[in-house]
Amino acid sequence: MKFITFKHNNKEQVGILSKDNQNIYPINALGVNYTSMNSLIENITNEEIAELKTKIERNTPDILSINDVSKLAPIPNPKQDIICLGINYMAHAEESARYKKEAFDKNRDYAVYFSKRVTEAIGDGSYIPSYPELVDSLDYEVELAVIIGKDAKNISKKEAFDYVFGYTIMNDVSARNLQTRHKQWYFGKSLDGFTPMGPCIVTKDEFATPPVLKICSKVNGELRQNSSTDLMITSIEAAIHELSQGMTLKAGTIIAMGTPAGVGMGFQPPRFLKAGDIVECEIEGIGHIKNIVK
Amino acid sequence: MKFITFKHNNKEQVGILSKDNQNIYPINALGVNYTSMNSLIENITNEEIAELKTKIERNTPDILSINDVSKLAPIPNPKQDIICLGINYMAHAEESARYKKEAFDKNRDYAVYFSKRVTEAIGDGSYIPSYPELVDSLDYEVELAVIIGKDAKNISKKEAFDYVFGYTIMNDVSARNLQTRHKQWYFGKSLDGFTPMGPCIVTKDEFATPPVLKICSKVNGELRQNSSTDLMITSIEAAIHELSQGMTLKAGTIIAMGTPAGVGMGFQPPRFLKAGDIVECEIEGIGHIKNIVK
Repeated sequence: MKFITFKHNNKEQVGILSKDNQNIYPINALGVNYTSMNSLIENITNEEIAELKTKIERNTPDILSINDVSKLAPIPNPKQDIICLGINYMAHAEESARYKKEAFDKNRDYAVYFSKRVTEAIGDGSYIPSYPELVDSLDYEVELAVIIGKDAKNISKKEAFDYVFGYTIMNDVSARNLQTRHKQWYFGKSLDGFTPMGPCIVTKDEFATPPVLKICSKVNGELRQNSSTDLMITSIEAAIHELSQGMTLKAGTIIAMGTPAGVGMGFQPPRFLKAGDIVECEIEGIGHIKNIVK
Repeated sequence: MKFITFKHNNKEQVGILSKDNQNIYPINALGVNYTSMNSLIENITNEEIAELKTKIERNTPDILSINDVSKLAPIPNPKQDIICLGINYMAHAEESARYKKEAFDKNRDYAVYFSKRVTEAIGDGSYIPSYPELVDSLDYEVELAVIIGKDAKNISKKEAFDYVFGYTIMNDVSARNLQTRHKQWYFGKSLDGFTPMGPCIVTKDEFATPPVLKICSKVNGELRQNSSTDLMITSIEAAIHELSQGMTLKAGTIIAMGTPAGVGMGFQPPRFLKAGDIVECEIEGIGHIKNIVK
């Protein structure tokens, strides 16, 4: 099932996206009342999900065209910063080290975890600000983002997927000059508007465990990143296991699993984003998001 | 004025701490109704603060002894991760580089910003968990934490203090082995229970601008860190200015300004924390917090 957050008649709502991505069933019209995706993730029961499925199959009349709503990020206001994995695909580790050896050490015996502040995640179709006075090396990174469904602490690898609610696409927009000059990556990853996310959260039952999905990005229609999520170095279950040894991963936590090779800094010379560029991120079975740099 | 969060009769409340730190005036009993410190910071007006001052001077009977309440962190559930400055006192930069040169580069032309995940900050008197199976190098770091009072975006250095609500003490508890092995410091800083904070938030009007305050820490009564906040490399106004160029610093944001020399890893050989150790952090005019390692 695909859950989407959208705005209709100036009201933020949660809905179910139809299989062909053309229509939305607002969940409140289906008799399941959650006012936000965070609240849905924290509280929805399997019975309610089954009930929603049945009602959709009956094809209720309360249906909206995707063209009549504003698509928001599935979780527009994450309750905590996004947990990100760095250099988690080998070919991206190599291109990063080539770009700036001292900032991106490709020898990683352990996962690299950092965080991304998100005051408001932006949706499919929204603008990515370019900060011309602050940023000279704006870059894109398509990532599979895992959404935690229930509070996870001390979770074994074997149990890890029991705590996953679903998956979405995230563009981990990065200001390479800020990311590298402040040593720690946090600030260069955390500017307002640097977290396009969407178009929906696909529940885990729609995919294999772990999900093996094609992942790609395009800039102005040109294919830049093109990989598969089975090439991740640290797996979803390994990350949930390791992090949860020390941190409670609350329901609604977002873990972005790193980006494959083909980002702007990976080219020689680098090909950074500029105002007017169109960035598309796509993951098989989830959909795609398109954002224009402003 | 000193604002404190405490639990009395099993209910979390906000109050004013008396000048001698011995008594608490619950603010709701003073006719100003906020159910949490976050809500107070976001909404309180100067008129309400003046009103509170007048009422306290009249010495209302609704007063609690500090000994009859549980002290909580002033902001037990921060709305976003804490923004931290790394190696922001020169002597600490030197001791860190001596401990592990590749992890702590003392040459910093720019501020180092990272974040600390805080699902729940712990208060004065609470236990710091030691994670014996995960952590072999538990360390303390006393820091001045700045609390932002209203949403800040694109703020000049000159305006910066207009956006400050007040100050508190934070112990940036760190697992050095996790902090260094994962390259980015985030995970080693973010374990549950790693953020003792308190005992109160002192509003900015109680201090000079910028505040020049003695800052120190003790382990089992032995003085370890002993410095002054005027030795910070990146100042409060510089940090607010720089960060707000890209990120909206929402009301309630906590910025921890870095720690002076004298942490456990600074000794040769290092003197890390072990179960049973008593860690005290103190800042002039704010008070002190004491936590035992468990």
